[in-house]
Amino acid sequence: MQNLSTRHLLGIKDLTENDIQLILETADNFKEIINRPIKKVPSLRDVTIANIFFENSTRTKLSFELAQKRLSADIINFAASSSSVSKGETLIDTVNNILAMKVDMIVMRHPYPGAGIFLSKHINAQIVNAGDGAHEHPTQALLDAFSIRQKYGDVAGKKVVIVGDILHSRVALSNILCLQKLGAEVMVCGPTTLMPRYIKDLGVKVEHNLLKALNWCDVANMLRIQLERFDIKYFPSIREYSMMYGLNKQILDSLDKEIIVMHPGPINRGVEITSDVADSKQSVILEQVENGVAVRMAVMYLLASQNQVG
Amino acid sequence: MQNLSTRHLLGIKDLTENDIQLILETADNFKEIINRPIKKVPSLRDVTIANIFFENSTRTKLSFELAQKRLSADIINFAASSSSVSKGETLIDTVNNILAMKVDMIVMRHPYPGAGIFLSKHINAQIVNAGDGAHEHPTQALLDAFSIRQKYGDVAGKKVVIVGDILHSRVALSNILCLQKLGAEVMVCGPTTLMPRYIKDLGVKVEHNLLKALNWCDVANMLRIQLERFDIKYFPSIREYSMMYGLNKQILDSLDKEIIVMHPGPINRGVEITSDVADSKQSVILEQVENGVAVRMAVMYLLASQNQVG
Amino acid sequence: MQNLSTRHLLGIKDLTENDIQLILETADNFKEIINRPIKKVPSLRDVTIANIFFENSTRTKLSFELAQKRLSADIINFAASSSSVSKGETLIDTVNNILAMKVDMIVMRHPYPGAGIFLSKHINAQIVNAGDGAHEHPTQALLDAFSIRQKYGDVAGKKVVIVGDILHSRVALSNILCLQKLGAEVMVCGPTTLMPRYIKDLGVKVEHNLLKALNWCDVANMLRIQLERFDIKYFPSIREYSMMYGLNKQILDSLDKEIIVMHPGPINRGVEITSDVADSKQSVILEQVENGVAVRMAVMYLLASQNQVG
Repeated sequence: MQNLSTRHLLGIKDLTENDIQLILETADNFKEIINRPIKKVPSLRDVTIANIFFENSTRTKLSFELAQKRLSADIINFAASSSSVSKGETLIDTVNNILAMKVDMIVMRHPYPGAGIFLSKHINAQIVNAGDGAHEHPTQALLDAFSIRQKYGDVAGKKVVIVGDILHSRVALSNILCLQKLGAEVMVCGPTTLMPRYIKDLGVKVEHNLLKALNWCDVANMLRIQLERFDIKYFPSIREYSMMYGLNKQILDSLDKEIIVMHPGPINRGVEITSDVADSKQSVILEQVENGVAVRMAVMYLLASQNQVG
Repeated sequence: MQNLSTRHLLGIKDLTENDIQLILETADNFKEIINRPIKKVPSLRDVTIANIFFENSTRTKLSFELAQKRLSADIINFAASSSSVSKGETLIDTVNNILAMKVDMIVMRHPYPGAGIFLSKHINAQIVNAGDGAHEHPTQALLDAFSIRQKYGDVAGKKVVIVGDILHSRVALSNILCLQKLGAEVMVCGPTTLMPRYIKDLGVKVEHNLLKALNWCDVANMLRIQLERFDIKYFPSIREYSMMYGLNKQILDSLDKEIIVMHPGPINRGVEITSDVADSKQSVILEQVENGVAVRMAVMYLLASQNQVG
Repeated sequence: MQNLSTRHLLGIKDLTENDIQLILETADNFKEIINRPIKKVPSLRDVTIANIFFENSTRTKLSFELAQKRLSADIINFAASSSSVSKGETLIDTVNNILAMKVDMIVMRHPYPGAGIFLSKHINAQIVNAGDGAHEHPTQALLDAFSIRQKYGDVAGKKVVIVGDILHSRVALSNILCLQKLGAEVMVCGPTTLMPRYIKDLGVKVEHNLLKALNWCDVANMLRIQLERFDIKYFPSIREYSMMYGLNKQILDSLDKEIIVMHPGPINRGVEITSDVADSKQSVILEQVENGVAVRMAVMYLLASQNQVG
């Protein structure tokens, strides 16, 4: 059996193209399995996985949990709010304590960029990064790539535009890295104020006009706008953003070709995309959610396999 | 095998008498099973059920969860507080996302009347209403009927009085509908200010005097008073309510015959019933809780059976 | 098979020396099991256990849950915040309702001393006290004894000093009782203001000088300081406490012999012990956490065995 080149999934940055292809191919198998009446496999029956979420999350947490259940893993859930983190315990102590209980793998979401990388250097367990601040969200990028590949057969050569708040988005960064490794062309689109300074160093095209970006691409990945980050004093306001970068059916229908529309969810309907776009035939948003379970099963299965003898 | 006439359990309103009898008979079997040393059955081994609770609930949530565990279902818990609902996601998006992860059944509690009905028209999964605002709480009514039937052998012909805040109570409405379909005579008892205007349209007797109501009935179902709904400025205050509609042992012992006393819980001891009534031989309150697990097993088992081939 | 002399584990006070030895020996077996690749045993497959936590707790709750999962028990989690306790339901009603759903065992943490004892007199289920106010925390004392025994082969004759806020500590009380029953010599060490008045009645040595205490002992159990209990107006402040009773590497290295250092966690690094002590070879803190799962498995296994026929 093939193995990943890394013990953890901390970010797309550490993965080779082969690693990514291996994950996507493994996810193909799991997707077939979870669409059968009997959705469970005993693969991780003696593996204990702790989900440690220092930030709220609906879909990512549920998706990981379901993936773990389908793999028959034992699950321990640890939410920061109900924890002794509030008593001042350090991250390393918290995780070391969980590991001392014979936990094999940690799935962690944390508000600080690099929290998973830091942890991987200090503790002895496999870590899956479920989002670390504005840094990376690797399983989201993998499921996005899986969804594009499912539609077009291949990611290589496809043109993907990521629209929105690139500056604060871990989804954007992981997607750029993943798509480039798979040979796609990547463009980012959004207002200058929401672009990181280092954007050109990433080797992506930058476009400030949504229509031009859409006419160029095969896939538009519309990022979620964090409403709490907008302030009426600065440009753009939510209304301005929505007018300039919101995708509606009229724009979609005006394009020369049929593109596919992605969104990492949850959607602000009427802000970054309108409901008729979200619910259109071109939207693959719910398929992304479905693929998320298969991709996460693949990641945890491949990581756990490294520990097996023989 | 017999089937329910409905794909969901949204309210007692949609059930035929046959449906209700089928649920009660199926619950008989499950009650026997959960009283054996080996309480689990593999019936729902490949069914994934999401419990989505937009309102707090102890006993209903635990009861559903235990019923699911006894049936060997896979369970996903989703509490509104730890969810992206707070990020403004719509109900349909939330549930569609959960469903995209290959969830087969949704058990939902929601503060808005009709939330389950609304959902059932927009999504493709089986829904069990675990309480929707002041509208219905069908599994509570079914377990209440089961508890009466267990005591008297049959519900038909029995006289049941529901005492308390009829206006705001989903338990009252579901109970009235369920008892009438099973052929019981139903009376409601409480102050005029806590009676809905449409009460006479429901075909129930209305009585404002507790003693008269109790002397008429075979079963008294004492509703829980929502303390937060009372205001010292209006009639009745809690003290007035308790004096006029609270059931104590003295009243109970003064009746001509031995009635049974029910309560959906949790009890405000000393308000709607006193402790000596709650803990008396005539109280079936804890049996209601026990029966709740069996009845919920029956409901989910019958709904899930509809999807099975052959 | 040998049985415990008690139906519950309410406190160390109720256990005989034989009981404690039986628990420790049973934990030996479970420790071996959870270090194997296949960590699960089917022992409690048809036992349902409810974890009822009226106070937050990370490690104790996770430890009990993992122990239950390793034993294949069915688990129901009940946190006070998401419960109808906030609706005014009494403790007995809450627990009776959970029991009516056919729960076999209750693991409870509660802020009031004696809550478990009170409950055991009013309800019909086995209770494991997971900490009741400033009273007892018996599984912590058992895992501490297990950890000492693992290091020294035997607890009898060993000298153990418990350092810190003895007055408010359930860990201190349970440890004193447990160590004495196993034949250890016990000393407590801390400022007079954090000593209970009845301390001499417990038959322990009292020492106010940390260095003297450490030079006497084989084992130092450094209690966690509850930062919120300290007030700058009273003696000692956190800084004063840390200077007088905090353990650092310099002190540890200055002792004539090599002692072992314990801590119930979570650690306030730099307050009761410094990081170099916590992470030193003499620290058994993470082993305590690991042993906790084995000891809790033993406790629940032995209690559940009492109900088995034959």
